Amino acid sequence: MHGQGVSAAAHSAQPEPPLTLGALAEQHGLRLAGGAPDLPIRGVCALADGTAECIAYAMGSAQLQALEKTAAAAVIVPEELAAHAPCAVLVTAQPKLAFARIAARFEYRPQAQGVHASAVVHPQAQLAPDVTVGPHAVIGAGCVIGAGTRIGANAVLGDCVTIGADGYIGSNVSIHHYVRMGMAVRIEANSVIGARGFGLVHNGRDWEQIPQLGSVVLGDRVEVGAASTIDRGTLSDTVIGDDVHIDNQVQIGHNCIIGAHTVIAGSCGIAGSCTIGANCMIGGGVGIGDHVHIVDHVSITAASQVPRDITEPGLWSSTFRVLPARQWRRLLVRFGRLNRLEQRLRRVEKASTKHDKQD
Amino acid sequence: MHGQGVSAAAHSAQPEPPLTLGALAEQHGLRLAGGAPDLPIRGVCALADGTAECIAYAMGSAQLQALEKTAAAAVIVPEELAAHAPCAVLVTAQPKLAFARIAARFEYRPQAQGVHASAVVHPQAQLAPDVTVGPHAVIGAGCVIGAGTRIGANAVLGDCVTIGADGYIGSNVSIHHYVRMGMAVRIEANSVIGARGFGLVHNGRDWEQIPQLGSVVLGDRVEVGAASTIDRGTLSDTVIGDDVHIDNQVQIGHNCIIGAHTVIAGSCGIAGSCTIGANCMIGGGVGIGDHVHIVDHVSITAASQVPRDITEPGLWSSTFRVLPARQWRRLLVRFGRLNRLEQRLRRVEKASTKHDKQD
Amino acid sequence: MHGQGVSAAAHSAQPEPPLTLGALAEQHGLRLAGGAPDLPIRGVCALADGTAECIAYAMGSAQLQALEKTAAAAVIVPEELAAHAPCAVLVTAQPKLAFARIAARFEYRPQAQGVHASAVVHPQAQLAPDVTVGPHAVIGAGCVIGAGTRIGANAVLGDCVTIGADGYIGSNVSIHHYVRMGMAVRIEANSVIGARGFGLVHNGRDWEQIPQLGSVVLGDRVEVGAASTIDRGTLSDTVIGDDVHIDNQVQIGHNCIIGAHTVIAGSCGIAGSCTIGANCMIGGGVGIGDHVHIVDHVSITAASQVPRDITEPGLWSSTFRVLPARQWRRLLVRFGRLNRLEQRLRRVEKASTKHDKQD
Repeated sequence: MHGQGVSAAAHSAQPEPPLTLGALAEQHGLRLAGGAPDLPIRGVCALADGTAECIAYAMGSAQLQALEKTAAAAVIVPEELAAHAPCAVLVTAQPKLAFARIAARFEYRPQAQGVHASAVVHPQAQLAPDVTVGPHAVIGAGCVIGAGTRIGANAVLGDCVTIGADGYIGSNVSIHHYVRMGMAVRIEANSVIGARGFGLVHNGRDWEQIPQLGSVVLGDRVEVGAASTIDRGTLSDTVIGDDVHIDNQVQIGHNCIIGAHTVIAGSCGIAGSCTIGANCMIGGGVGIGDHVHIVDHVSITAASQVPRDITEPGLWSSTFRVLPARQWRRLLVRFGRLNRLEQRLRRVEKASTKHDKQD
Repeated sequence: MHGQGVSAAAHSAQPEPPLTLGALAEQHGLRLAGGAPDLPIRGVCALADGTAECIAYAMGSAQLQALEKTAAAAVIVPEELAAHAPCAVLVTAQPKLAFARIAARFEYRPQAQGVHASAVVHPQAQLAPDVTVGPHAVIGAGCVIGAGTRIGANAVLGDCVTIGADGYIGSNVSIHHYVRMGMAVRIEANSVIGARGFGLVHNGRDWEQIPQLGSVVLGDRVEVGAASTIDRGTLSDTVIGDDVHIDNQVQIGHNCIIGAHTVIAGSCGIAGSCTIGANCMIGGGVGIGDHVHIVDHVSITAASQVPRDITEPGLWSSTFRVLPARQWRRLLVRFGRLNRLEQRLRRVEKASTKHDKQD
Repeated sequence: MHGQGVSAAAHSAQPEPPLTLGALAEQHGLRLAGGAPDLPIRGVCALADGTAECIAYAMGSAQLQALEKTAAAAVIVPEELAAHAPCAVLVTAQPKLAFARIAARFEYRPQAQGVHASAVVHPQAQLAPDVTVGPHAVIGAGCVIGAGTRIGANAVLGDCVTIGADGYIGSNVSIHHYVRMGMAVRIEANSVIGARGFGLVHNGRDWEQIPQLGSVVLGDRVEVGAASTIDRGTLSDTVIGDDVHIDNQVQIGHNCIIGAHTVIAGSCGIAGSCTIGANCMIGGGVGIGDHVHIVDHVSITAASQVPRDITEPGLWSSTFRVLPARQWRRLLVRFGRLNRLEQRLRRVEKASTKHDKQD
């Protein structure tokens, strides 16, 4: 193995001068106990082991042992764990949330650098003054880019793309004409928003492409992972609601409408014209058929298949589990005989009834 | 939600002067009835609701109600629906096809702009005079690009790539050396054609890569969706037949041969050395094992798995369906007991036979 | 179909003067028999048919017929096949391995050309003297690139990326800040290494992103296919061991640790925080759930699902197989009735026991 894990702090942007425990407590509304407010904090770390001058977090009693042994400088804990830490504590009812916010203070963030000289920005594009545009990025006519948004190197925005404030477009992303995004949208590297939807009509000899005249609309705080694709609609827009989070390698077909706060894990394939409700949780590798309607508050386990509507909230599944291959093959043979098995059962049922009658 | 659906017409390239209903009827061979030929048409729209000055289409009696209420300026219909429209009709036996062709008249299409100054085109590449090459595109030595072909921004063509006339290569696409494409091929953004096939040989200690010396050949009118990958062959070429349409996020392994007119939906994974016949329909998320042979006219339902040859045309499936997770778990337990279930059945069958004999 | 297969030799870099059979035998440690050492060799070919002036290989008696008819100039064979070739033979115990190494002699390899003028290389990046950087590639501050490494056109390396010697980074690849790679790593086109891991925490109203402060570490000789994605870790690094080979369209979540020599076929989705052992073989389209631990020497058949740990080496499976759709639907109905089926069986078992007692 080449190299080994480094502490998060090692490649974090070090705010100068270093943050102190007291400042972090105050700024994030946490109660500090058992530690000096002027303790310098240089990063965050995992609870197990822990790292000096770094902050970890613990959620519940399952982590008690790790908490008691941690070498972290401080641990964010709920009230009931506060007494068990061998170090300073930052007390809150939501330790993971506080941890995420504090970790963001140490996140790597290259400086805003304006528009790189090699970027090709159409004169009719409107960029807010503090937009960052990376080397070789291409921004089409009529684009409107909001304040603080960062466009990665080699990203390509077609004509008339609208991106709200505080957006992040990764490197090598392709965003097609007329796509519209809300505030604080994050598109990871190499994703494609607004490519042609997959619409075909047969002319008796060949397939012809049905033009895709709609676009894609992403709400506020939408996140799209790396190498994911969201197709533009045929006659209306593909619409991704506010606060929807989509992982890597996800495919979303044309005309889909996805409700707010829904989370879609990696490698999912969502066919065209689906409607997915709000606050859904779609596991990794799930497939959803075209024109499927899913109500709000549905969770689907990883790798499940959804060829039909889901009309009730709750947890849904069609996930199998690996078995030793010999065992699996035997089950598969039995599965293939299920029709015969049922017939045989019916026969013995009849015989049994006959015997019953004879009794 | 940020923004909302816009009518397709809103971001269409408006031909100047506007097209008229009569001109469209004449140019597309449709019979116009119940409307003024000089009616201006500014776009296409969905039948439900409909949009003024736009054309919709209806296929059959299931759409009768929507047809009777549409606000579209005209509707493309088959003969039997003509009397039911509240507006002008364009009559044809193939309304969807006519609609697709008319919609194409309103499709967004940036003007051809020649070779962008920032593109890096090798002096030994041959580009037809009206080829468009986007900003920062890279075209290698020995490439030959046909008339009217558009190469997107930041696309990369290796050496000796051949692309026929009227092609479209999306932004951030990678096409490797010696790939050859026919006429009117369309490759959506961020796809990769001709990367190294996944061939390995073990040397007793490590894996070594088997060089992939073949290439990829795409026939005429092939379509490849966004973020799809087609690997180059090992000793011969990976071959995609004429009029094959491939959706987003599809992986096609080295040495595959796919017959003409076959359609492959999103997120499919096709392993190496497969032969897929002509006129097949492969649903989304289907997996096909290596060296599998599939005959012509096979359709496969979404998410099915094909580890072995398919020797008969028709519809094939291995798709499960989600159920409420509790119900699914119970079935899964029973599934795992299928061997025992069959044994138990055999026992009662024997007992039943014994009773029968006793009778 | 447009175009047709060409012999591999046709687009190979022809070493000048041509290699001879004798030189190849000597350089690769093979015993030459039945052929003139000065026979010129211009490429490699398949055994079936075979091509003049090219070398093929044969592994075992199953290929005897093809061997006896081949038109290849020479065939690499194991000792027991040597007498059956109609041409020269190169004898070795590992014909496929020798073939792969000889094929590499004829592989297309563009000349090293230094750093292209259009590339944007940060002045604080350190490139070994013979590094190749393609047009429009972007290399961030603090990057260290080893000798002989080739960076493809439009590839983007964030700040402080480390790449060992003899690496290959394909076109349009995105490698994020602080990613570290060993020697001879190969990343195919449009892959993304080190994007943000998919970590979220709910604040009671919206999802917030958990910063991903770790990085990705790739060992020596790691191969990543086209359009694959490997996310950076949350607090520690995502780690891919030496000699791991990953195919196209594979997603590897944050914090995963994958052991040396493991091979992962295309379209797999591996969720976050998995540990996969060394020398595993993961078939195409396999899904692995988050926090799953898999021991060394596990093989998993294509499209299998792994929601739980695998604690024993060997072959594991949950792969179904397509059937004619009518037949499949009948099985699916029976599958859905498995609970009832078992109940019915229990009833006849009881009845049968009763009859037994009555006997």
